[in-house]
Amino acid sequence: MSLVAGLDIGGTKMAVALADRSGTVLDHATRPTPAMEGPDAILTTATDLVRTVGGTEVVAAVGVGAAGVIDRRRGVVVSATQALPGWAGTDLRGELSRRLGLPVAVDNDVHAHALGEQWRGAAAGYADVLLIAVGTGIGASTVLGGHVRHGAHGVAGHAGHVPVAAAAGVACACGGQGHVEAVASGPALLARFRSRSETDAAHLAEVARLAAAGEPVAAAVLAFGGTAAGHAIGGLMNVIDPEIVVIGGGVPNCGEPWWQPLRAAIATEVLPALRDVPVVPAALGADAALLGAARLAFTLLP
Amino acid sequence: MSLVAGLDIGGTKMAVALADRSGTVLDHATRPTPAMEGPDAILTTATDLVRTVGGTEVVAAVGVGAAGVIDRRRGVVVSATQALPGWAGTDLRGELSRRLGLPVAVDNDVHAHALGEQWRGAAAGYADVLLIAVGTGIGASTVLGGHVRHGAHGVAGHAGHVPVAAAAGVACACGGQGHVEAVASGPALLARFRSRSETDAAHLAEVARLAAAGEPVAAAVLAFGGTAAGHAIGGLMNVIDPEIVVIGGGVPNCGEPWWQPLRAAIATEVLPALRDVPVVPAALGADAALLGAARLAFTLLP
Repeated sequence: MSLVAGLDIGGTKMAVALADRSGTVLDHATRPTPAMEGPDAILTTATDLVRTVGGTEVVAAVGVGAAGVIDRRRGVVVSATQALPGWAGTDLRGELSRRLGLPVAVDNDVHAHALGEQWRGAAAGYADVLLIAVGTGIGASTVLGGHVRHGAHGVAGHAGHVPVAAAAGVACACGGQGHVEAVASGPALLARFRSRSETDAAHLAEVARLAAAGEPVAAAVLAFGGTAAGHAIGGLMNVIDPEIVVIGGGVPNCGEPWWQPLRAAIATEVLPALRDVPVVPAALGADAALLGAARLAFTLLP
Repeated sequence: MSLVAGLDIGGTKMAVALADRSGTVLDHATRPTPAMEGPDAILTTATDLVRTVGGTEVVAAVGVGAAGVIDRRRGVVVSATQALPGWAGTDLRGELSRRLGLPVAVDNDVHAHALGEQWRGAAAGYADVLLIAVGTGIGASTVLGGHVRHGAHGVAGHAGHVPVAAAAGVACACGGQGHVEAVASGPALLARFRSRSETDAAHLAEVARLAAAGEPVAAAVLAFGGTAAGHAIGGLMNVIDPEIVVIGGGVPNCGEPWWQPLRAAIATEVLPALRDVPVVPAALGADAALLGAARLAFTLLP
């Protein structure tokens, strides 16, 4: 029986899963990401994690879903945010493969997330999936015919960087403006609440609790975010025409005060033929990218 | 040598091309679409057109690019605008195949347009193409790996129905609002000019002539349309990540007063990795859908 290790390398946490060909997780481990110690420390932690679930005795191949823009063909980190200093330029596949003596496949974490949900999660059984992750940023991945679409330059899926009316004139982290991420990401919603409320909130989860309790400013902020995200997602559905839309990331955990306006905005945005397309929450949580990474590893095996 | 007929069935005009496997057009004919006489008259005109370029003596298969939403698997017109009364429900493939005794493949005209440009036009040599047609409506087609992406419900490519800030609150023909088509289509630009100018204009071409001559209202209207379309197209590029973007339809014929603002808006919208993606005018004009239809016909031959 072939077993693989799926690795998830995020800005704050790293995890590994030992999985079989059916997607069953047989072992699992987690470590904080030594982000400030640099790429070598991250690679060392990654190899340690693979060894904790059996190493080369047990593992036949390794799949990695990693933060940053990943060139999956070259196996290299093309760019990364300030959360991972020095990460850009890292030969992720080459280094892990050399240190472990195993075949390694790499992709970015949003694509791994989508693959995981399509394999064993909310989109199991669907071939054409649009996954949108609404969290610190807004990203997406399209799985078409069971395969992730990476795009001609490896940047397909940047769904945070599409225009919506609610973002008109607002500066975006990408250098542009008017993009949905600038107003509907988790940090944007938290900042919006803070600028409008007397109540302090350190995390978006507090805003969600206030909204659930009927506090009107918190409810309005989540409705604003859900509506803006819904318009962007509905527009993309009209162009991509997926079988199912899966929504992951942290913001959907805000519950109905975010979901209800999101669903309403999608319903006003999509063409009649798409009104019954399921729009569902991601089912695997933090395990999605791990399982997607494991799925990736199986592409290396016969 | 296998020859095929490519048919383009539009709201006002129908055309046929006799083409060989290299995409060379050997014969060509055009007729007005008998739109008000109903589907049977259109099918009769279509069979007549195929016969004028040689009929079953010469033609081995027929490809059709037709107006309306086409279910290419069933070969049936799913829905159509009021320009073609009764067209919805027509068994286009079955009827043409029966009348001609030839294998027939059908698709909608925007997809045929994209296939034609990808085969022999502005996108020849590119595998991943985003074609946007800006005309009476705004549509799109993505060719990925040389194949048109139709979507899970056959409605992929409805790029007119994505949000842009300039369309906020404006009703769209689809029943929604805030969509780029509602403000940036040809009719929307003509209406905008008429509502803002003392000068009368019967066609958008007159607005284009005025803009080229420096008339400020005409120039502002075309700049508005190019900018709105550019924001929508740039956002889609960030998600689809094509190798090349081809822009067809009638509105691009308005020239630099439309193209320059379009290019500027795309440049502000796209991620850095996509700044050098070519954005080019369609090269084949009205022949694109004909050639795409011919290409479609070749998929039926060994």
